[in-house]
Amino acid sequence: MANIINGKEIAQQVRNEVTNQVQQLADQGIIPGLAVIIVGDDPASQIYVRNKEKAAAKAGINGQTISFPADVVEEDVLNKIQELNQDDTIDAILLQSPVPKQIDEQKMQSAIDPSKDVDGFNPLNIGKLFANRAGYYPIANTPKGIMRLLAETQVELSGKFIVILGRSILVGRPLFALLEAQNATVALLHRYTPDELRHNLLQQADVVIAATGVPGLVQGVDLKAGAVVIDVGITRLPDGHLTGDVDFTTAQEVASAITPVPGGVGPMTIATLLQTTVELAVQHHQMEL
Amino acid sequence: MANIINGKEIAQQVRNEVTNQVQQLADQGIIPGLAVIIVGDDPASQIYVRNKEKAAAKAGINGQTISFPADVVEEDVLNKIQELNQDDTIDAILLQSPVPKQIDEQKMQSAIDPSKDVDGFNPLNIGKLFANRAGYYPIANTPKGIMRLLAETQVELSGKFIVILGRSILVGRPLFALLEAQNATVALLHRYTPDELRHNLLQQADVVIAATGVPGLVQGVDLKAGAVVIDVGITRLPDGHLTGDVDFTTAQEVASAITPVPGGVGPMTIATLLQTTVELAVQHHQMEL
Repeated sequence: MANIINGKEIAQQVRNEVTNQVQQLADQGIIPGLAVIIVGDDPASQIYVRNKEKAAAKAGINGQTISFPADVVEEDVLNKIQELNQDDTIDAILLQSPVPKQIDEQKMQSAIDPSKDVDGFNPLNIGKLFANRAGYYPIANTPKGIMRLLAETQVELSGKFIVILGRSILVGRPLFALLEAQNATVALLHRYTPDELRHNLLQQADVVIAATGVPGLVQGVDLKAGAVVIDVGITRLPDGHLTGDVDFTTAQEVASAITPVPGGVGPMTIATLLQTTVELAVQHHQMEL
Repeated sequence: MANIINGKEIAQQVRNEVTNQVQQLADQGIIPGLAVIIVGDDPASQIYVRNKEKAAAKAGINGQTISFPADVVEEDVLNKIQELNQDDTIDAILLQSPVPKQIDEQKMQSAIDPSKDVDGFNPLNIGKLFANRAGYYPIANTPKGIMRLLAETQVELSGKFIVILGRSILVGRPLFALLEAQNATVALLHRYTPDELRHNLLQQADVVIAATGVPGLVQGVDLKAGAVVIDVGITRLPDGHLTGDVDFTTAQEVASAITPVPGGVGPMTIATLLQTTVELAVQHHQMEL
């Protein structure tokens, strides 16, 4: 039976580290500032943004939420981003996804100052990651959190074969770059990957990371014995239960370690967002911790 | 026996297209300008830059070579790049690699205006490629040329499995993004990939692209019957012959199509560089061709 990777516990550890770092910055008169822009009234986004705000406050970060009505014109959002770019009390800016149709999300991401781009979605930061540039730059928080889970689980990555399912710019693509940088050999699969090829590649994978939103896409029978399985998917079933992309029951029989859903990758995202906020504040004020 | 992919012929076709486009621009009073910066006296670089200059002249492009001595200080190169960024007669700038140790090549690449970045090495352009952004941006010319070879050979990419050997930012990484954008499933291999894993993945690959500089790394026995093989490697053997990463003799027995070395990928790079120069001029002058 697989070892269960406890995301809740590791996320708490990250939050404790963040709280300590915030305290050290406070001792020097610096309070990290995180601005979250939300457009419209999508209920899931509202909950998510409120959770971010609470978590920031708990860690001692100055969290600000800027809400725009669903019918806001793009220029107003853009002006707000430019204002936050100039605001010296703000170290980190994020635009909550999704945004209404009249707002060009990529244009907004490009407008956020790369040095305040806490989500790592500005193409300049994506490019640095993909080019494996040295130096500090923000990286998307879910993949960054997954790397922490793998590190805490002491998974060897160099020389291993890793299959990523799902190629979004939020998860799959940055993970690809992060894992390649650790000298893993990585295949990036997606909806156009034929079933047979997916099964064959999964059968060879030392680590499987599923981020598709397709419940039950990965079954125990797909896995190599001893594989490490990270399940990023989260889907609410008609009966109200949450489920991932991996069939947990059959997968845990074959895997050596596996994340549960919920309680695996999920809790890492906000914890890592706070971590990145502090890192940006440290960079911004040219401090060392 | 494999169909030989004639890179010389396809490169000539690209050059003819470029010459026609330059003519169209000339009719409107526009001459595309390409500036090549070379530092030091590496003989291979000297030859390569001279070939670029000749090819540009032949296509009607205004090619300028700016030479710095090997002991130039970084600031002088940086100032020249900034001058060229401002120069309205210059549409495309490239810094010939390698540069002497005192020059930070990545810093120089970041200094080139993204809209004149004919090599596609500025991280902003790399990020746009990796994020699969819409709109025009320059892409590294060797991978772009390989995509043209594959298109001319009418290789179906969607749903196929592609193995890339070699993860440089010049070839392997941008190719990864370009092939994923065509809905291929791609694995990116490198020096840390164990031999057995490499062989097993190659055995499943519909398309193999080798860009490692390791002669004979891919043998016929590694390939799936009917695979398409693109050999980017080019190494001069002690006897003076040029060879690729692929053992051509055994590979051509198994492959359905294969590029020779020389005469495969090689001729595409300069042809594609000229093509990108014209594209940048068209963007710069907001023309349509």
